[in-house]
Amino acid sequence: MQEQHIASAFDRDLESVQAQIMKMGGMVEDAIRLAAQSLETRDEELAEQVRGGDKAIDALEELINERAARIIALRAPTAVDLRLILSVIKISASLERIGDYAKNMAKRNSVLAQLPAVADSTGAIRRMCKTVESMLKDALDCYVQRDAELAMDVIARDEDVDQMYNALFREFLTFMMEDPRNITSCMHLHFIAKNVERMGDLVTSIAEQVVYLVTGTHPDEDRPKADNTSTKLKG
Amino acid sequence: MQEQHIASAFDRDLESVQAQIMKMGGMVEDAIRLAAQSLETRDEELAEQVRGGDKAIDALEELINERAARIIALRAPTAVDLRLILSVIKISASLERIGDYAKNMAKRNSVLAQLPAVADSTGAIRRMCKTVESMLKDALDCYVQRDAELAMDVIARDEDVDQMYNALFREFLTFMMEDPRNITSCMHLHFIAKNVERMGDLVTSIAEQVVYLVTGTHPDEDRPKADNTSTKLKG
Repeated sequence: MQEQHIASAFDRDLESVQAQIMKMGGMVEDAIRLAAQSLETRDEELAEQVRGGDKAIDALEELINERAARIIALRAPTAVDLRLILSVIKISASLERIGDYAKNMAKRNSVLAQLPAVADSTGAIRRMCKTVESMLKDALDCYVQRDAELAMDVIARDEDVDQMYNALFREFLTFMMEDPRNITSCMHLHFIAKNVERMGDLVTSIAEQVVYLVTGTHPDEDRPKADNTSTKLKG
Repeated sequence: MQEQHIASAFDRDLESVQAQIMKMGGMVEDAIRLAAQSLETRDEELAEQVRGGDKAIDALEELINERAARIIALRAPTAVDLRLILSVIKISASLERIGDYAKNMAKRNSVLAQLPAVADSTGAIRRMCKTVESMLKDALDCYVQRDAELAMDVIARDEDVDQMYNALFREFLTFMMEDPRNITSCMHLHFIAKNVERMGDLVTSIAEQVVYLVTGTHPDEDRPKADNTSTKLKG
């Protein structure tokens, strides 16, 4: 009876700190979307909003870490429960880094606004961001629902982000060779695209955490990606 | 007096779990080196050794997590001490992922051994690995010594890894266009190069943790990299 009581107290603690993770995830999704939008519309005010919002994201990570630590100190969880509470710390760390990348994207805005526009590149970056944003939404959903299948789907979709990045990289190289006046813009845009690709990696690591929580083993990042790549290129 | 006693007990706990981090780091450094070596010499036995070693790395991460949790449960650290013990969990998670990438590199070995060799690409990948390995060594050194300056240096060196990856990517594209029989080899090699670049990102995140521990603020990944890139390309 006593044990039952302790277990459900832990569950309540966990649920409450997971709710904070979802809140943090929502803030990071907003940051990605607004940063991409500010880039496309050259909206300096929106960019400023993203930069300010990042402080709130950092503060929420601090809070989540402290709460997770308090739960560990209070309940001394072991095995599966420990894994669950540690996942909170790891996932909030990934979210914090994704938020940083969104902030850095927004920071480039004022520089890019003074440079010549490069074809549809900001649109392409926005589409990349949209994919990452939807992956993040699903990664957090499958985290709460402990859905390893959806998590594997998120991991596979990171391949699309990689493909979009590779296509952009090739495009930027072409633009730079065509006209050296494009070089500075393209370097900034390439840097942004690279960071979006890294956001995708971080979302993937959240989805991998979910697979680990549900199945107890780390997913093999090797298989799905490699197979996709080969098929897509040969096809 | 009592507080003094508790503080030094915490320090001893922390030191002991940090020693495990250093051990784990050494194992991951070995995995990177051996995986690159097995790729270059097409040594299947060495590759097998890396694959087997990854299990030990995973097990050590489990152990470090459990010990960190026990320290939190026992000492209920707050503020700086909490940050220190959480860094153990985050850094071991990064090490575990780097180990995974090394394992995946080793896994490709048996496939690549049956395909035509592509110029000096495995040599180039080995050089990339060497850079990442030395960055990792320094990242762990500066972690133990709480050296933020060395950590910033590690973060800046990730730019070199990115440049090497970009150069390889362009090279693979050329090889594939020159001769379609190179496509399969190049796809595998590109996948490997990409994963080495991701190892570099994870080492960077360890160095960022160190900066955060020492200075209390997250380093801005934006500045040094961007400036380097622009200068290098324009020069």
